[in-house]
Amino acid sequence: MEAVAPSEGWGVLHLFYKVDRARADAEPGGTKRVLDAIASLESDGHQVLVFTVLGHKAELGVMALGPDVARLQAFQHELAAAPLSLEWSYVSLTERSEYTDDEERARQRLYPTLPSKRAICFYPMSKRREPDANWYALPFDERKQLMGGHARVGRAYAGRVVQLITGSTGLDDWEWGVTLLADDPTALKEIVYEMRFDEVSARYAVFGPFVMGLLLEPAEALRRIGMPDR
Amino acid sequence: MEAVAPSEGWGVLHLFYKVDRARADAEPGGTKRVLDAIASLESDGHQVLVFTVLGHKAELGVMALGPDVARLQAFQHELAAAPLSLEWSYVSLTERSEYTDDEERARQRLYPTLPSKRAICFYPMSKRREPDANWYALPFDERKQLMGGHARVGRAYAGRVVQLITGSTGLDDWEWGVTLLADDPTALKEIVYEMRFDEVSARYAVFGPFVMGLLLEPAEALRRIGMPDR
Amino acid sequence: MEAVAPSEGWGVLHLFYKVDRARADAEPGGTKRVLDAIASLESDGHQVLVFTVLGHKAELGVMALGPDVARLQAFQHELAAAPLSLEWSYVSLTERSEYTDDEERARQRLYPTLPSKRAICFYPMSKRREPDANWYALPFDERKQLMGGHARVGRAYAGRVVQLITGSTGLDDWEWGVTLLADDPTALKEIVYEMRFDEVSARYAVFGPFVMGLLLEPAEALRRIGMPDR
Amino acid sequence: MEAVAPSEGWGVLHLFYKVDRARADAEPGGTKRVLDAIASLESDGHQVLVFTVLGHKAELGVMALGPDVARLQAFQHELAAAPLSLEWSYVSLTERSEYTDDEERARQRLYPTLPSKRAICFYPMSKRREPDANWYALPFDERKQLMGGHARVGRAYAGRVVQLITGSTGLDDWEWGVTLLADDPTALKEIVYEMRFDEVSARYAVFGPFVMGLLLEPAEALRRIGMPDR
Amino acid sequence: MEAVAPSEGWGVLHLFYKVDRARADAEPGGTKRVLDAIASLESDGHQVLVFTVLGHKAELGVMALGPDVARLQAFQHELAAAPLSLEWSYVSLTERSEYTDDEERARQRLYPTLPSKRAICFYPMSKRREPDANWYALPFDERKQLMGGHARVGRAYAGRVVQLITGSTGLDDWEWGVTLLADDPTALKEIVYEMRFDEVSARYAVFGPFVMGLLLEPAEALRRIGMPDR
Repeated sequence: MEAVAPSEGWGVLHLFYKVDRARADAEPGGTKRVLDAIASLESDGHQVLVFTVLGHKAELGVMALGPDVARLQAFQHELAAAPLSLEWSYVSLTERSEYTDDEERARQRLYPTLPSKRAICFYPMSKRREPDANWYALPFDERKQLMGGHARVGRAYAGRVVQLITGSTGLDDWEWGVTLLADDPTALKEIVYEMRFDEVSARYAVFGPFVMGLLLEPAEALRRIGMPDR
Repeated sequence: MEAVAPSEGWGVLHLFYKVDRARADAEPGGTKRVLDAIASLESDGHQVLVFTVLGHKAELGVMALGPDVARLQAFQHELAAAPLSLEWSYVSLTERSEYTDDEERARQRLYPTLPSKRAICFYPMSKRREPDANWYALPFDERKQLMGGHARVGRAYAGRVVQLITGSTGLDDWEWGVTLLADDPTALKEIVYEMRFDEVSARYAVFGPFVMGLLLEPAEALRRIGMPDR
Repeated sequence: MEAVAPSEGWGVLHLFYKVDRARADAEPGGTKRVLDAIASLESDGHQVLVFTVLGHKAELGVMALGPDVARLQAFQHELAAAPLSLEWSYVSLTERSEYTDDEERARQRLYPTLPSKRAICFYPMSKRREPDANWYALPFDERKQLMGGHARVGRAYAGRVVQLITGSTGLDDWEWGVTLLADDPTALKEIVYEMRFDEVSARYAVFGPFVMGLLLEPAEALRRIGMPDR
Repeated sequence: MEAVAPSEGWGVLHLFYKVDRARADAEPGGTKRVLDAIASLESDGHQVLVFTVLGHKAELGVMALGPDVARLQAFQHELAAAPLSLEWSYVSLTERSEYTDDEERARQRLYPTLPSKRAICFYPMSKRREPDANWYALPFDERKQLMGGHARVGRAYAGRVVQLITGSTGLDDWEWGVTLLADDPTALKEIVYEMRFDEVSARYAVFGPFVMGLLLEPAEALRRIGMPDR
Repeated sequence: MEAVAPSEGWGVLHLFYKVDRARADAEPGGTKRVLDAIASLESDGHQVLVFTVLGHKAELGVMALGPDVARLQAFQHELAAAPLSLEWSYVSLTERSEYTDDEERARQRLYPTLPSKRAICFYPMSKRREPDANWYALPFDERKQLMGGHARVGRAYAGRVVQLITGSTGLDDWEWGVTLLADDPTALKEIVYEMRFDEVSARYAVFGPFVMGLLLEPAEALRRIGMPDR
């Protein structure tokens, strides 16, 4: 299978599943299929985070990223063979921020190492293009200054919340995906709430659905959502 | 299973189910599974309210809250083993109001004791961020004053309606969840209608779906929605 | 089963069903179950209207109202045992208009007797809360005057169209439910069209979905939608 | 079955179906059921157009109209017995335009004879009621003048495109249904595109979903969508 | 089967499928059915692109275009016999741009030859008709000038990204379909992002859902999504 490598950045898939209980009962081996697919993708140089999702939107969340979009899609199809039903997803690419010149930060956003935390939230977002609040009609310097204030809120949570912003304009229904990782669920709520008062969010942000979950070792996550062991 | 405890407040799950009648007929024990899951969660220091829901959105409502988000999620997965289909849900954390300095009230919101009433309604809501009605662009003092008027309407219903506001920014699709409890269904309608004239709601509120139900002992609720007894 | 009686007004359920044809073929007795549930609810002092629905939204409509919300919900669960799938619904309470002092009219809205007509339409609606068209920011006298003009259009259809407005703020997704009854389908279209030019509708109304149907005796309605007789 | 005849105009049903392939395989006779239902409705003085639909929204489209709304609904229920799944629909009544005094044109809109063409498109639409573009706040003369310009565009396509506008205020989710018939698919696109520049559409129109299909003899349409012959 | 040929341009179908795994397991021959349908359509003078889709919206994408709309629809029905479920689609016609006089470019848009690339994205879009940003109220010359700037962004990606704009006003829910083809996924993201700052998009564009996929030989695409070989 020939690789499809973005010229800059990595491919990112956020995949949200429910257990297909009828298939899970009838077809043994669901857990092994998922664990094997994850191990294989990791051995091919990609990263995977697994979490259980709170509420009705999904039961299992899988975030996978790395250099080869074709390999990520093969991974998605390997999971399709397990008794899981893909309820929602998000497709994006890692990207540098156009508003910072810090090469080290750009590299961390383009080629991130996902940390180990207890809780995760994910949501997509776009910037408004309304006649009286049009982000895309602002000059670059104004956008840069506004994003600077936004980033300061983020830095105030350094150590408590890790953020990864990925780009999806042209690839999925919003313009960015936001992944937040923290040990403390309260911190996830507080950082998003505090940012909402920042002019970038208060005036220009449009948000998609929010998904919140608890990060776990893959085998433990599958056990908790009731995937049969064998 | 390691606890995931918010640094402030409790986890809250609103879960809305329909009976999966084919599974309920084929698999005995649905009622026992649900009652056991509730008893076990309560014995672990969490609270549970159960209600039958009016209309097509769901048949059974379950509101669970307490200190451990991981335990709440385990509860959700225990219910997934019963012949119930999870139709909708809402994920939030209890939180203090930033607009009151009353420590006793803050404690009551952070660590509430749910009262016993006959009727319940639940709805999520956000504050507007439109160019000409942007809550998040108002100074704190103006927001505090507006919320003060809003709270006065609530207090006029003291004794008739109990309110619990929980926070969900970053965790679910709206910014707050509102749970109202009353013996009189008319009181639920009147308090929400009267608040709609308050500037906070009239000008700044955006509402999600509303669910209304009747609170019952869990066993009685399951009997009414037709869950087989054994 | 203890009654849950609103302190003012009656409970109202609009229920919209499709036939579950697989269950209808496998389980005899669907027609009897529905007819028995209706007869039993009526004998408990509640009213029921039954109609066949045009188009894809539903096949069967049932409007039930009366003094006990718990009894209405028990009725809903009795219908859940028939081979019907509940596709949509609306939950409301009868209420007096705050803009009229006529006690007789208030009593007719609070405790209505549903007339026998050939055709029905139902739709929920809310009032706008936009910055430049905010119903809830208008003073009472202005709202009263606007509603007076609106009522005059309604009265022009007296004898041709019967209206019942019920309240659902806090109970369901819109603020009111509107039930219109007429022998002539053209009259249903004309009254709603004419009211749309009235400032209350033209400027302040937001409408939900519209359902139109033909009122029939329950047994005849079930026969027409293909519910097996035995 | 007693007729339900509008006091002015005919009833109109647009019905959009997918084949229920599992039922079609298990139950022979689907084609005969549909053809019989159509023949019977036509023999009762109603008209029927049948078309295959492009894309995922439906496979088969059926437009039925005539003097008796109860008969049209009986037809819908006869089709429910065939292995078809009703995916979408639209309910309306034929009506005269309030902006023309031409009695012959009024009669053609109230009691139309549907022509035989190759292609069809259908979409519902409403007029805007926004504060700064409120059709229902315009005086009659201004609306009449605007509609006159709109009609001129339509007349420029005389011979190439046949239009039928039907009314659905109070009956379905938009205010009108628009049916366009032409031999040339390009003409369907061009007329709607050209009208979009007309002030009535540019400023005041809100459109629902668009469905496009190819008109065929009923038996040929059923053959193309794979309905078993016997 | 009589051809239905647009008087100008070709018919275009974008079809998005998921594998129906239960049918795929039970019915052999899915792969052969799809490959035969594609080969037959191509031999009838139409073009087909096949791609695997990332995320939950679909697994397989098929873009088919050519002179006969009836033949394209027959192709869609041939695919309906394979164990595939049609999740989404888009119906359009190729068209010349009204803003360019270049006959060669018009011909390339009306009768395109689809190139072979690694990645594809597709999205529908419309132009805004809001009171303060109404594309359809602009004079032709202003629209032409705005589109000229838009086209310059496109030309800056010549060699990296191939664009095909097709028209769907009156045929499907948006006014145009946009198909972008590139070897580099990053280029798909960059061109759409850069265009968003162009006034045509920043101020006047409304976007539908975005689908992104990887172009493959049909047999290889079917293998990757798990369609059984025989």
